[in-house]
Amino acid sequence: MGVLHAGRYRTAGGGDISVSDAGEFGLIARIVARLSGGSALLGPGDDAAVVAARDGRVVATTDLLVEGKHFRREWSSAYDVGRKAAAQNLADIAAMGAWPSALLVGLAAPADLELEWVDGFADGLRDECELVGADVVGGDVSRSTVLTLAVTALGDLRGRAPVTRSGARPGDLVVVAGRIGYAAAGLALITAGRTDSPLADAHRRPLVSYAAALRLAEAGATAMIDVSDGLVADVGHIAAASGVRIELASDDLPLPPELVEAGLDVGVDPLSWVAGGGDDHAFIATMSDGSMLRAMTRLSDLPDPVPFAQIGRVVEGNGVTFVDSTPSGSPGHDHFAP
Amino acid sequence: MGVLHAGRYRTAGGGDISVSDAGEFGLIARIVARLSGGSALLGPGDDAAVVAARDGRVVATTDLLVEGKHFRREWSSAYDVGRKAAAQNLADIAAMGAWPSALLVGLAAPADLELEWVDGFADGLRDECELVGADVVGGDVSRSTVLTLAVTALGDLRGRAPVTRSGARPGDLVVVAGRIGYAAAGLALITAGRTDSPLADAHRRPLVSYAAALRLAEAGATAMIDVSDGLVADVGHIAAASGVRIELASDDLPLPPELVEAGLDVGVDPLSWVAGGGDDHAFIATMSDGSMLRAMTRLSDLPDPVPFAQIGRVVEGNGVTFVDSTPSGSPGHDHFAP
Repeated sequence: MGVLHAGRYRTAGGGDISVSDAGEFGLIARIVARLSGGSALLGPGDDAAVVAARDGRVVATTDLLVEGKHFRREWSSAYDVGRKAAAQNLADIAAMGAWPSALLVGLAAPADLELEWVDGFADGLRDECELVGADVVGGDVSRSTVLTLAVTALGDLRGRAPVTRSGARPGDLVVVAGRIGYAAAGLALITAGRTDSPLADAHRRPLVSYAAALRLAEAGATAMIDVSDGLVADVGHIAAASGVRIELASDDLPLPPELVEAGLDVGVDPLSWVAGGGDDHAFIATMSDGSMLRAMTRLSDLPDPVPFAQIGRVVEGNGVTFVDSTPSGSPGHDHFAP
Repeated sequence: MGVLHAGRYRTAGGGDISVSDAGEFGLIARIVARLSGGSALLGPGDDAAVVAARDGRVVATTDLLVEGKHFRREWSSAYDVGRKAAAQNLADIAAMGAWPSALLVGLAAPADLELEWVDGFADGLRDECELVGADVVGGDVSRSTVLTLAVTALGDLRGRAPVTRSGARPGDLVVVAGRIGYAAAGLALITAGRTDSPLADAHRRPLVSYAAALRLAEAGATAMIDVSDGLVADVGHIAAASGVRIELASDDLPLPPELVEAGLDVGVDPLSWVAGGGDDHAFIATMSDGSMLRAMTRLSDLPDPVPFAQIGRVVEGNGVTFVDSTPSGSPGHDHFAP
């Protein structure tokens, strides 16, 4: 007779201690302790969590972030990576016109990863979730030679129909709410060694206006997507799903002075960042003229101003075309491209 | 003016073609084509999926599977890995007393992974989901040097309270439904070179009786967990969460002849597999005498017989003890252990 599992729940200090020192259960306990109490019906610690889905439906999305592919520890703090990992999933929920409610987070980490990194990562997840009232309700940890984050977000449509990619109709206008081109500009600046430029932070973590997506949905968006692959690529996703052509105008793409300045700084046409850069998680929507007026009014009510622009229109046909000149640069990002 | 995104959706053949040849969007299209149509309100292809959660709650869990840690391509077929990845998450949902409804699957793959592997993996996911009427509703693909799978499962409580780990009360009996020790025996056989033993398949993929978990919940289980870390470790999770002591009896642990034979074959005490081996995803539940009788009746109605045994009882105190001899072997599995 003996108590068999005593000693499996080790507590861990900080500093140079690694995830391997903490052990699986110690690591989970450490992460959970940094999260906010939360409003989940049943939070971390059981076989599964239970989350409210009040209107009888749940919106769900998942993303992987692989070190070296989606982030670099030498470029981004653990906190930034946590914010970014949460943001890109919460933005997918918001792009459906839904309120994010919960995150589940898988962490596969090298055995020598410092516990402090995990702390910062958990803090980043928590703080980004706090912006939308969501909670980290569950997760998993494992060892791997490649630091890999797997984030799933859940959301609540609150009785509304989801805003898909397939609802754009000829005659609709195309609008964008939020910053675009900033993450790409930030990456270019970091690559050029300007790691302390304020724009560099836009690569490290996006500044997502979740409220803007919900206002666009309320105003009557017929289709919506968040910019993750790049503006032209993501507009292309709407065009393909809706069976329409989308005409953009280069002259209407927002080109703020800070991007122009950064372009001059590193010798890049800044419009290529706006047209081709992903990871800003601005929201592109299609809607009628009347809805656009409603959207502008609703967006102007937000406490933080959100960049908003009409950038094109929906016509018969297929693909994405420019009515004026086609911007230089990549049409998007393929995660299996070299 | 030009159609900018043409050519991004490459189609891929089979054979020696790798995920890198298919590209991100081609790979996703290929996976989706192998899945069943499904009953999701909105399936793959948008920013997020929409899944029914009829009683206003959704159960959610996530797991990582890292090559070399949780599976080996030389030991398990892609199909087996798909079955296993789905099963361990669906079992977590069932262990809450919920019906699995949906999976989301992240696949981080080396660029040279054969497309045929992805096909087999998708087929495995689909077939395991089919056992419970769940669908793969979304996912993500990325490149990584380490093949990593991130699976999230969702489920539906159908109006019932979740069966947590924390509801065990002194006086309850402890029961187990499903096979235990088989995966550990299978791993021992594979390690000893007996890769074509029928028991080896129990390591490659678990045979989970999801229906048994739901019958245990219906019969009045006060606490439940699926065996993933090992029987004694997982019983310990119930004891810790419920604030009780659980007394097990070695003599009552099921020890089927095939495990005894395998133990003789490789020179291992087979009881150590039963007590310490994980990954079988049998269901351990606590319940009153009356509930156990109901459970036995309900389990006997199932088309496929499910091993069922009373293995202990809940008393005041804490930890896990044995009333007779303590089985040799590991008390469980720590994913950060060397």
